[in-house]
Amino acid sequence: MPPKSDFSSKNAKSLSTFPSKLIIGNAVNSADILYGSRFRAEDDFIYFEHEGRKGIVVSSLEYSRALEQVKKGVEVLEYSSLMRKNDLAKGISAEVALSRFLQVKEWLVPASFPFGKAVNLCKEGISVQSADGGFFPEREVKTEEEIACIRKSVHAVEEIMKELQNMIREARVNSQNYLVLADKVLTSEYLRRELESNFKRMGFTANHTIIACGKDAAAPHNTGHGPLRAGETIVADIFPRDDETFYWGDMTRTFVKGKAPLHVKKAFDAVKGASLAAFKVLRAGSSGAGVHAVAAEYLKEAGFVTGKDENNLPCGFFHGLGHGVGLEIHEGPRLSPSYPQKLVAGNVVSVEPGLYYASWGGIRLEDLAVVREEGAEDLNTMEMELEIP
Amino acid sequence: MPPKSDFSSKNAKSLSTFPSKLIIGNAVNSADILYGSRFRAEDDFIYFEHEGRKGIVVSSLEYSRALEQVKKGVEVLEYSSLMRKNDLAKGISAEVALSRFLQVKEWLVPASFPFGKAVNLCKEGISVQSADGGFFPEREVKTEEEIACIRKSVHAVEEIMKELQNMIREARVNSQNYLVLADKVLTSEYLRRELESNFKRMGFTANHTIIACGKDAAAPHNTGHGPLRAGETIVADIFPRDDETFYWGDMTRTFVKGKAPLHVKKAFDAVKGASLAAFKVLRAGSSGAGVHAVAAEYLKEAGFVTGKDENNLPCGFFHGLGHGVGLEIHEGPRLSPSYPQKLVAGNVVSVEPGLYYASWGGIRLEDLAVVREEGAEDLNTMEMELEIP
Repeated sequence: MPPKSDFSSKNAKSLSTFPSKLIIGNAVNSADILYGSRFRAEDDFIYFEHEGRKGIVVSSLEYSRALEQVKKGVEVLEYSSLMRKNDLAKGISAEVALSRFLQVKEWLVPASFPFGKAVNLCKEGISVQSADGGFFPEREVKTEEEIACIRKSVHAVEEIMKELQNMIREARVNSQNYLVLADKVLTSEYLRRELESNFKRMGFTANHTIIACGKDAAAPHNTGHGPLRAGETIVADIFPRDDETFYWGDMTRTFVKGKAPLHVKKAFDAVKGASLAAFKVLRAGSSGAGVHAVAAEYLKEAGFVTGKDENNLPCGFFHGLGHGVGLEIHEGPRLSPSYPQKLVAGNVVSVEPGLYYASWGGIRLEDLAVVREEGAEDLNTMEMELEIP
Repeated sequence: MPPKSDFSSKNAKSLSTFPSKLIIGNAVNSADILYGSRFRAEDDFIYFEHEGRKGIVVSSLEYSRALEQVKKGVEVLEYSSLMRKNDLAKGISAEVALSRFLQVKEWLVPASFPFGKAVNLCKEGISVQSADGGFFPEREVKTEEEIACIRKSVHAVEEIMKELQNMIREARVNSQNYLVLADKVLTSEYLRRELESNFKRMGFTANHTIIACGKDAAAPHNTGHGPLRAGETIVADIFPRDDETFYWGDMTRTFVKGKAPLHVKKAFDAVKGASLAAFKVLRAGSSGAGVHAVAAEYLKEAGFVTGKDENNLPCGFFHGLGHGVGLEIHEGPRLSPSYPQKLVAGNVVSVEPGLYYASWGGIRLEDLAVVREEGAEDLNTMEMELEIP
C-alpha cells in the first residue's frame, strides 16, 4: 500500500549504550515486542533486556504458550512471581514490580510506549527514555530467514492477484459497462470480501484491500466502491499478513478491462518505466532519496506533471516511492525525499511509483525488493500488464 | 474470549474538568479515536477537543475520506494547514504544531498515548496528563445504535457457530476417534481457517478463533491444535469484528461429539447453571464483583473446586466471569472480584463462566448481555447443548 505520511519519524541511531530496555505491548500492535520475543500473544505482555538477560512477563493464562513460542535465550516470567506480598492490594503495577525485581533505575522504551505506564514508572523514581530512532534498528536489516517469510507472503498475494486478474478476464461487460461474472456485478466491496476470504483460507489476514476503479483510483488510499467498469483503470493494492509468521506482503497492479484510452496507456508505460529505472539504481549504498528521485525524474521526463490540478487537488506522483516492509506494513527504510540515508543489504522495500489525476483515475505498480550489495532482488514474478481482454 | 489479565486498569472517573483532549492513533489500535471521530483510517491521525471545538488532523492522502466519515460536529484539518513556514524543515512535529495552532498549554491524553509524542510536547513546555481511568468513560454505556451494532456481530457469530455445530454433526468418527468430514480430518487449524474465511465473506474479521479439543481446552487462551476427537470437550470461542462498524461480537459454546463422559456432563450443567444464576442478578445497580461471586458460588456449591491441582496448575473457575464488549473486545466494565463498582444500564458485558481441569479439558459458555434497569437482555439466541450426535 502507499506509504503513510511519516510526520514524526526520526532516523535510526545506535542504542547500544543503554543497558536496560522495556516494551509493553502485544504481537498485533508492537512489531518490536514480536521481534524481540517472537511470542505471538494478542494481549499485552512485557519484554525486557537487562544486563544480558532477556525475558518476557506474562499472565498465568499465557505461561505455557509463551514457553513454547519464545525466541531462544528469552526467559518467561509470570506477573505473580514479581509481586511481593500485598503488592496487588497496594495497586503496584507490573512495570513497577519488574523494575524493583531487576533493580532497574532507567529504562529505554519505544516511542510508542504507553504514556500512562511511563508515568507509573516516573512516580517511583524510575527514569524512562524514548528511543525515537527505532527500538530495534536492526529490524530494518532482514536475515535470509526473514526474507523467506516475506517471500511466502509475496507468493500468497501473487496468487490472489492472479485470481483477481482471472475474474476480470472471465467477466463480461453489461449494457451499463459494468463487469459481470456468473450473473453477479463485480463491485469493489464484493471482490474485497471474496479475496480477503480466500486469504484467510490460505492462512493470511488481509484488510482494507484496495480495489479502486476510475476516479476512486485517483486517491491512493481510497479502497474503492461500486461496480468495476470496462475501459477505466482498476488499481488493486493488496497487503496480507501471514497469520503464522506475522510478516507482511504488499503488491499493486493496475488493470483495464478491454481497451485502455491512450492517455492511460501512456501513464501506465511511464509508471512501469519508472519502476524499472528505480530498480536499476536500487542497491546497498544508494540513498532512499536518490532512488525516489530517479523514479520522479523519469515520470517528469515522460511528460507527467506533479503538483496541484485546477481544483487544487494533488496530482501526478505525490507520494514516496517506497517503504520498508517486515513485521510492519510501513517501516524503515523509506524511498522518499525525506530519507537521505544510505540503504544497506538486507533492507526490504516496496517500489511503487504511481500517477494520479482526478479527471480519470490513477496508475500504481508495486513490487517488493530485497536490497543486495550488487543490486535489487525483485521478490515478485507476476508481469505488469495493463489491458485484460 | 476469556477476560485478559488487567494488571494496570483503574476505574473510570469524571474527566469533564479537563478542557483539552488529545489522541494520536488509528481506528485499529485506538477505540477512543474511533469513538471520538468515527474516522476509520488504519494510519495514525490526531483527534483533539479544545474549548468546544472537536477535530481531527489527517494527511492530504486521507482528507476527502475523512470528510465523508467523521462524526457530525468534528472538523477535519490537514497537517500542512497547521505548519508555519519552515516548520517541516525544523522538524516540528504535528502534535507540537497543533498545540501552537490552538494555543493549548495542557493536554489530557489516553494512558495508551505514545510516550515519544508526550516527550515532544513536554520539550515545548506543553503539559501532558494521562487519563488512567478511561479517556471516554461514556464508551462503557452504549446507545441503542451501538447495541444494534453489537447485535449484528452476535448474529454473525451465531451463524458461524451453527455452521461449526453442523460440521461436527455431519462428521463421522474414524478408527483413530478423529472427526472426519468429506474425507478430511477436522483439525483445529483447518476449522479456524474455514470459519475465519467465512466471516470475511460476511464482512467480519476474526482472528485467533479458539477451537480447542480435550486437554487443549483446559487452558482458556489455547487456540487448539490437531484433530478433533469424539467424546472429548470441544471449546469454541469465536470473536469477530464488524469490518463496517468495528464493533465486536464474542461467543463461546462447548460441544462433545457423541456421548460425553459423566464428569463432563456434570461440569457442563454446572457452568450452564452458573450462567443462568448470573443472568438472574445482572442488572443496573448490581456490582461487577457481586455478579461474579454468584457464578463462582454456584460452581462451588455444585462441587467444583477452584485452586491449584496436584501439578500446581490452576484449575476450576479461575478467570473473571465477564468483560465489557464494544469497540474493544475487552473493555470496561468487568464482572470480576476486582470490580466492586455498580453496573449501569447500557453496559454490554460477556457472561462466561467456565471450568478447567488439566486432566480432561474445559467447559466455557459465553453469551453477551445488555445491562438494563430491570434485568439483563441476552443478545444470544442459540441454545447451550453439549452433545452433538
